[in-house]
Amino acid sequence: MRISELSTATGVSVASIKYYLREGLLPEGQRTSATQATYGEDHRRRLGVIRALVDSGVGIAATRRVLAALDAPLAGTNDLLGEVHGAITPEVEATPDLDAAEAFARRVGWEPGACDPQVLAGLARALQNLDRAGFALSDDVVDAYADAAQRIATAELAGVPTDSPEAAVRYVVLGSVLMEPVLLALRRVAEQVASGRRFGGAAGAGR
Amino acid sequence: MRISELSTATGVSVASIKYYLREGLLPEGQRTSATQATYGEDHRRRLGVIRALVDSGVGIAATRRVLAALDAPLAGTNDLLGEVHGAITPEVEATPDLDAAEAFARRVGWEPGACDPQVLAGLARALQNLDRAGFALSDDVVDAYADAAQRIATAELAGVPTDSPEAAVRYVVLGSVLMEPVLLALRRVAEQVASGRRFGGAAGAGR
Repeated sequence: MRISELSTATGVSVASIKYYLREGLLPEGQRTSATQATYGEDHRRRLGVIRALVDSGVGIAATRRVLAALDAPLAGTNDLLGEVHGAITPEVEATPDLDAAEAFARRVGWEPGACDPQVLAGLARALQNLDRAGFALSDDVVDAYADAAQRIATAELAGVPTDSPEAAVRYVVLGSVLMEPVLLALRRVAEQVASGRRFGGAAGAGR
Repeated sequence: MRISELSTATGVSVASIKYYLREGLLPEGQRTSATQATYGEDHRRRLGVIRALVDSGVGIAATRRVLAALDAPLAGTNDLLGEVHGAITPEVEATPDLDAAEAFARRVGWEPGACDPQVLAGLARALQNLDRAGFALSDDVVDAYADAAQRIATAELAGVPTDSPEAAVRYVVLGSVLMEPVLLALRRVAEQVASGRRFGGAAGAGR
């Protein structure tokens, strides 16, 4: 198909497609003349992935790394996870104090050494921000979060497809990234539902 | 204290403090001369909150809305949650199809009507991105996520302080926003730990 047809098929504007081509996120089409190229099913699929990542708030540079992980000759699931988490974890200027994050991990039964330093730094930074804002975590809330994270990770890891290496890579890479907005959205929904139940007068009801 | 002392006390640069003053996020200090002002404990605390929000990835406009919610004469917990979630939910250009989000909510036993339309739209958008990327959710994973969100929300709502209205507002507003990066970081840690257990060769071990 031509670029205009690819645009119609995916809902992505021609200008954005050209941008992704220039940035090397989307491979070139097959040239049919000096000014035209045709695009296939692979392009359509790849464009869907790019759009999903960008719309999930993943920046262009991180999207490039995530796509590279998707294309990589099969690395182990662990290495893939590390690479993908590294791509989407915001850079931290100063390395935060890891002690709090390590203590937190140990408290909920996780061995911090089993975890990439950058990911641990992301946890440390999030905990540091709570501290900066003077927000204290209760034990019950810590337990609920740790338990929730563990259940999710267990269910997700159990679901890694075993039928093909490509399917496994796709699942790990895309699942790691694209489920984050789902998780945040679900917590917001659950908070509003729980708040409506506890305090009555459902937020936004009747709007 | 003077602005330079406020900077030292909080680790926020004088330039950033001036920016927050100009943007109206931080109230003016008490003028002591045409070019000097003094700042108190309230400023120090407020600056900690601003810094925590900004560092958590909340933009300036959203930070202003979150701070306004923090300062508001006590509204109900529901209204506060709606306002805060509205402030931090990314704007969606086109309203996504809410059917999938509503079906998802009902499937896990939540009444979609108990939930702010914008928050539901955030869930719809996240689900739409999975779909765009051709990523299918298994029932087990959906259940784990819904269950996790529900446990978290229940624990958090149970912890709303009852000793003062100000403490309750602070808890709801800051907890809603600042726990999001904690949740994402914990999922990443849990995934790496679970992956190390399942597939061996802990990611990043020994680094």
